[in-house]
Amino acid sequence: MSYVLHYAPDNASLVVRLVLEEMRLPYRTALVDRSRSAQHGATYKRMNPVGRIPALETPHGPVFETAAICLWLADRHREVVTLSPDLSDPARGPFLSWVFYLSNTVHAEMRTLFYPALIAGPDPRQQAVARQQVQTSLATHFDLLNSQYAPANKALTICDLYLAVLLRWPALYPVDADRSWFDVSLWPNLHALAQRIEARDSVRAAATAEGLGPSPFSNPQPATPPEGSAL
Amino acid sequence: MSYVLHYAPDNASLVVRLVLEEMRLPYRTALVDRSRSAQHGATYKRMNPVGRIPALETPHGPVFETAAICLWLADRHREVVTLSPDLSDPARGPFLSWVFYLSNTVHAEMRTLFYPALIAGPDPRQQAVARQQVQTSLATHFDLLNSQYAPANKALTICDLYLAVLLRWPALYPVDADRSWFDVSLWPNLHALAQRIEARDSVRAAATAEGLGPSPFSNPQPATPPEGSAL
Repeated sequence: MSYVLHYAPDNASLVVRLVLEEMRLPYRTALVDRSRSAQHGATYKRMNPVGRIPALETPHGPVFETAAICLWLADRHREVVTLSPDLSDPARGPFLSWVFYLSNTVHAEMRTLFYPALIAGPDPRQQAVARQQVQTSLATHFDLLNSQYAPANKALTICDLYLAVLLRWPALYPVDADRSWFDVSLWPNLHALAQRIEARDSVRAAATAEGLGPSPFSNPQPATPPEGSAL
Repeated sequence: MSYVLHYAPDNASLVVRLVLEEMRLPYRTALVDRSRSAQHGATYKRMNPVGRIPALETPHGPVFETAAICLWLADRHREVVTLSPDLSDPARGPFLSWVFYLSNTVHAEMRTLFYPALIAGPDPRQQAVARQQVQTSLATHFDLLNSQYAPANKALTICDLYLAVLLRWPALYPVDADRSWFDVSLWPNLHALAQRIEARDSVRAAATAEGLGPSPFSNPQPATPPEGSAL
């Protein structure tokens, strides 16, 4: 049995797809119908009780949470393509530190950027305040990440693939709000990372599958997926 | 060289201390002076560039982010005490899923509960709205976690220790806000977990070191630490 990635175009599942492609692991996809909120339905929640996209079906049962799936895949198939430092590698500790930081800070704050009502409540003015606060905070995170990415290449990890996707979304979402605060070229090392990642064959395959266009990280355009919708 | 845990009483470093104690690993502590915002100073940020507590000094360099440190320790010292399923164990995937969920959702939302100005801005009324929203959200997370913790014991993992601490804080913080929304006994399986964890020798040692009292998870009382301050 190969893996089954439950996904929606340009959703967090994209990070997992990049890892699967980069590691050349056999998988098929199953579109989660967000227009019917299928991720909150009983069938989906048997795989992912949290009710968020993605989930990965594996021969050992389902795994959920974007970063958890990526880390599990990277550690489990290190003999194929190495996207995570081994436990004995001194780089393992910093690697895990940055994976969790991307997940619990950068990615988590983007959820507030895209869905401010979750924190700010129904008042549009307060949602605008929340967006502004989160934009300011995210900009400081990108400053920090930019300072960590020296131009000299290190070995590719799931962190780089995850961060590339996190550099895409703020250029495109939310569609109905001002997004001029974000321009990846403000952070030269992150811009270089975006260009380096999107040149990879794995990203070309994922971009085709989800309609992400030719420069999905350095110059993102709205997704035009062959199935489903990014919105 | 043993480990050095940079900590503040009843801060996120408590989760790491519980793991160090439970695994009986040699360590010493270094108090981070929050009254002087030492976690934002240049010396501390050389260990943890994110500027948050905790950081762990190791013979292989510093590791930061609460969950990253715990996972790194658990995986690295599995031969001593096993607090994480092995890569070959089918439980590894779900374990990682829940670790990331605790980190990027439950713990992340608690930061908004304790520091609502970060998202809501300076208006106290809007901070109250943000707190209310997060309380509602956290209650659904505890509902979900409660449904996952059947009374029958499974092998202890870092997830259990992490969750126990996350059950302590909302009973105590923020000190200047109504906390009546939270009562761990509303969630019987989580209440049982809190009692089971706090009976462990490791927790007794940590509670003494940080002044957490006799029932730090099932019936939390304000910390009275021998050094530093929890606030």
